[in-house]
Amino acid sequence: MKVNGEYYTTVWKNGRTIYMIDQNKLPFEFKIKKCPLFENTLESIKDMTVRGAGAIGATAAYAMSQAIEEAILFGIPEAIPELKKRIENTRPTAQNLFYATERVYKIYSKTKSIDEANHEALLIANEDSRNCKKIGGYGSGLIKDNFKILTHCNAGWLAFVDFGTALSPIYLAKTQGKNPFVYANETRPRAQGAKLTAWELANENIQHKIIPDNASAYLMSKKEINLVIVGADRIAKNGDTANKIGTLEKAIIAKEYNIPFYVAAPTSTFDLKCISGESIPIEERSQEEILYQTGLNSSKNIEKILVCNPASSAFNPAFDVTPAKYIAGFITEKGICNADENSILKLLNKYE
Amino acid sequence: MKVNGEYYTTVWKNGRTIYMIDQNKLPFEFKIKKCPLFENTLESIKDMTVRGAGAIGATAAYAMSQAIEEAILFGIPEAIPELKKRIENTRPTAQNLFYATERVYKIYSKTKSIDEANHEALLIANEDSRNCKKIGGYGSGLIKDNFKILTHCNAGWLAFVDFGTALSPIYLAKTQGKNPFVYANETRPRAQGAKLTAWELANENIQHKIIPDNASAYLMSKKEINLVIVGADRIAKNGDTANKIGTLEKAIIAKEYNIPFYVAAPTSTFDLKCISGESIPIEERSQEEILYQTGLNSSKNIEKILVCNPASSAFNPAFDVTPAKYIAGFITEKGICNADENSILKLLNKYE
Repeated sequence: MKVNGEYYTTVWKNGRTIYMIDQNKLPFEFKIKKCPLFENTLESIKDMTVRGAGAIGATAAYAMSQAIEEAILFGIPEAIPELKKRIENTRPTAQNLFYATERVYKIYSKTKSIDEANHEALLIANEDSRNCKKIGGYGSGLIKDNFKILTHCNAGWLAFVDFGTALSPIYLAKTQGKNPFVYANETRPRAQGAKLTAWELANENIQHKIIPDNASAYLMSKKEINLVIVGADRIAKNGDTANKIGTLEKAIIAKEYNIPFYVAAPTSTFDLKCISGESIPIEERSQEEILYQTGLNSSKNIEKILVCNPASSAFNPAFDVTPAKYIAGFITEKGICNADENSILKLLNKYE
Repeated sequence: MKVNGEYYTTVWKNGRTIYMIDQNKLPFEFKIKKCPLFENTLESIKDMTVRGAGAIGATAAYAMSQAIEEAILFGIPEAIPELKKRIENTRPTAQNLFYATERVYKIYSKTKSIDEANHEALLIANEDSRNCKKIGGYGSGLIKDNFKILTHCNAGWLAFVDFGTALSPIYLAKTQGKNPFVYANETRPRAQGAKLTAWELANENIQHKIIPDNASAYLMSKKEINLVIVGADRIAKNGDTANKIGTLEKAIIAKEYNIPFYVAAPTSTFDLKCISGESIPIEERSQEEILYQTGLNSSKNIEKILVCNPASSAFNPAFDVTPAKYIAGFITEKGICNADENSILKLLNKYE
């Protein structure tokens, strides 16, 4: 997408260096972070400089190719499987990460060619971008004129390489003249909705309001929401979906108010090895993310403040699992399908 | 309750001056604010120096008696009805506020005695405190050993004159040796859970964790919550309950997971003139409460930072209405009753 008139993707590689939009600085500063070494890239996934299912996947693919090239350069090719594991340990819930490292590693194992590994990583990033564009095409069909759409967290282009998943249909609907309006859940603790989704929407001139996570049910009870679209970090074979903490809550209340709740994700997010949501590992992150908030102080500097009782501690599960029964359907690059095993398998086996 | 070994109530009056714990400074500073004039008191209700159903009620009662005394002193007794209206316009959702101003005004209208007005205000504050203690007695019967209890916002002693409603049963359960554990929802936008409830619980040595509002459904799905208790700002004749934004959401998900959801409130919170929740006015507060967060910076000073995309706006409904069907019962000073009109009327007509 364009930022200040220039075209960007969230992450790219040039030579051995990985570049990414620094999402910890957004929406207050638009900065590109350079990761010349594998260790820098690992750190950037962990500290969420880059975050979001597809963006993590593409970064993991580039990181795998970077790891391979460094290992060869330093004469320690036997370290490659260990480096792969270190990427996979950064964010345990994100399926795209495992999908991406596996693909790059497999190609390298077969060909022993750095060029082939680099090419595969680029392919993964380009596929992500192309798939997200297709998701926009299928998803925009669900959006009628003047629809008010609720989204949770950020599944926009910042969470992928380009276009996004949950927001991609909205961007297309806007160009189709449907005048969509978005309620963006703040998405505590890290406020990706208030910070990243709102930034994206403002950037694309989409009408929107930030709401506290607590206000979704109120808006639904007032018939102020026509459709909910969220992203996904991992989808089990039966349709159970892991996504940002709070997604389960929104899905339950949407069902209660008969509002269709869709999950938008590329098919690489499906993990058929997970029979149901119960086998999806849930990442628990530091309580500091709840106890502290980061923002712009009155001198326009980014500052971190303590927003909780100093003597108390917090519990911070980063994701939850929404059972398939609350999900109206999956919007993928291959089309839209119901949230059940048969429909999922049929869709996955379909040629594009 | 005790703070640093000394006994405090949230609000009290001495001569013509009203004193209150400054809840905008908690949990970072424990300060008492003086309101020597009616205008100071009005401002303190509006800016939430004092907040919470019962504390607003007691402050409104004191404010009414303060207004009467000032009007007499300045020789403008005809201004009294207008001053009453100004108190009532500060926080439109809180039933206790209307209940309190009405009682003090009525006594004064009948007796034309400042002393009687002052006495009635003191009576209201004392009743609030006594009722909350009784709520603790009835509510603690619902708490079994090692129960994990979810609460939303702050309906502790800071929200009343003493003891609180939702937290009063927990304080008693602790002294009964039941070892209760509390999950305190952060309660964005103003974070009364993370700031006030957590402060109260830490002060009383109750085991607890702060969680993001988004994490309640996750904990319920993991069978980590045995009971939900919240407060109320106004309860309609049919049992529909207005309370802090997000309460509706928690009630819906509690029902989904078969977890009992109780509302604790003195009977003064019932408004029989409201046939159902639809006629309860919902206060919309400034979007600044969402866009900015207040906390302690690294120099230990209270600072306000922008936590949202600077180019975006926000929507801030302060309350929502939970339909009676999601509520397991009301815990009042007269006992526990079901959330339906018959049970409510029977309870209200009961002698204590």
